[in-house]
Amino acid sequence: MDKVIRFGVSIEEKLLKEFDCLIKEKNYINRSEAIRDLIREKLVKEEWDSADMEVAGAIIIVYDHHKRELVQNLISIQHDFLKLIIASQHIHFDHNNCMEMIAVRGNIKELKKLESKIKSEKGVKHTVFAKSTLGETI
Amino acid sequence: MDKVIRFGVSIEEKLLKEFDCLIKEKNYINRSEAIRDLIREKLVKEEWDSADMEVAGAIIIVYDHHKRELVQNLISIQHDFLKLIIASQHIHFDHNNCMEMIAVRGNIKELKKLESKIKSEKGVKHTVFAKSTLGETI
Amino acid sequence: MDKVIRFGVSIEEKLLKEFDCLIKEKNYINRSEAIRDLIREKLVKEEWDSADMEVAGAIIIVYDHHKRELVQNLISIQHDFLKLIIASQHIHFDHNNCMEMIAVRGNIKELKKLESKIKSEKGVKHTVFAKSTLGETI
Amino acid sequence: MDKVIRFGVSIEEKLLKEFDCLIKEKNYINRSEAIRDLIREKLVKEEWDSADMEVAGAIIIVYDHHKRELVQNLISIQHDFLKLIIASQHIHFDHNNCMEMIAVRGNIKELKKLESKIKSEKGVKHTVFAKSTLGETI
Repeated sequence: MDKVIRFGVSIEEKLLKEFDCLIKEKNYINRSEAIRDLIREKLVKEEWDSADMEVAGAIIIVYDHHKRELVQNLISIQHDFLKLIIASQHIHFDHNNCMEMIAVRGNIKELKKLESKIKSEKGVKHTVFAKSTLGETI
Repeated sequence: MDKVIRFGVSIEEKLLKEFDCLIKEKNYINRSEAIRDLIREKLVKEEWDSADMEVAGAIIIVYDHHKRELVQNLISIQHDFLKLIIASQHIHFDHNNCMEMIAVRGNIKELKKLESKIKSEKGVKHTVFAKSTLGETI
Repeated sequence: MDKVIRFGVSIEEKLLKEFDCLIKEKNYINRSEAIRDLIREKLVKEEWDSADMEVAGAIIIVYDHHKRELVQNLISIQHDFLKLIIASQHIHFDHNNCMEMIAVRGNIKELKKLESKIKSEKGVKHTVFAKSTLGETI
Repeated sequence: MDKVIRFGVSIEEKLLKEFDCLIKEKNYINRSEAIRDLIREKLVKEEWDSADMEVAGAIIIVYDHHKRELVQNLISIQHDFLKLIIASQHIHFDHNNCMEMIAVRGNIKELKKLESKIKSEKGVKHTVFAKSTLGETI
């Protein structure tokens, strides 16, 4: 297990008061947990800013499964990028619309290529790229 | 099936040339598909800006499943917000880290409450809220 | 002057090491300053998430000043929203293009209305809304 | 003046109706202007995604001018990065807080370095980087 270190932080009283309000509102158990969360968030953001890291996340798409050949095409694309895709889950919204959550990991540039391949398919209504992390360093 | 309408767009030659480059780079089959995509993206962004809509999306979390009681707590939270959660998928990254993709739908404010409940749990390393749509109107 | 308080933070050694790297790379003088900055950033983000706050910031626009009546219209709009606008500065990029930085403060909803008024003017090529703060609470 | 071209766009009736609502709400004079705006917004976003472009924008900072040596340091930094800075404007919020809007242009990487230099100064409470464009290509 990770060794835990303790260090001191200086902060203006007024700013700390505001922070304590936020901590309460956001349900953190204490200041340390809230600060660790801010730090991790920043570090993951930095990971994604440096073009050549290995990262992880999910590509979320909403599409109309009635569009001709779309389902077939989405499967083909996913197989072309097999190395980047861990798993995917399909959710039915209504008679026409479904959502697919595709868990991905790999090089940022390649992941963006995969995203734009999927996004440009006719019938794909919306795409979001949820940028997360493999969690190894944080 | 939806009726398709055709209308004309005026655009400066220089701007259109830049757009055509982008379309090619992003693999769109034609200008119409690229423009529809820009429109849908904008509409979904607006949905999320208006506090009280019913929306859909996914909450992606990365966590260390060894943290005491975390797995148990995550399940409890999800049951407390049963109405908002459609399904969730678990992915194993390495010995310590796993990712969970939670498909959600519902009122924006309630979804944000759910997110902050999960995010503040000790052991949850990273959270992203992928903001998408039910696709009904677009 | 503000009273300064000191409190302790517990953090995993590995995470702290990553944070120290970031601090060095980003030129912070010490951990306290970096953490205060993360806290303030979060608090300002929250300000803007709560629809009815008084906030401050800048609307940055790039436009072609040759477009008929554009300069006139931009001035009219700014006068219509006088209460929100503190000052504005004009920068010449080249023969056609100029940038204007409009310092604003006021209610979020009204500021957004002002932004969309400006953004929709013909000849305005790009608009960014830099969301900052009056700094009173942080 | 730029030559204007006209081309046809196909779109589902339902989606067009939603778009027309948005256009009205956002004050665009017609569909063409709204679509040109979406295109320009996308192109500027792409500019900033490609690490080595020459771009333009503004760095907005809010700070407490009472902090020892801060004003002096901010001027020194701006002189060190003279090549990137076009002009800056100072706004007084209250007895303690002021905002400075710094108009910048240049290479993305260098601009980010400048931003992080400013951001890490003690007394700088908030920084936003408004990412815009020189407007030459759009």
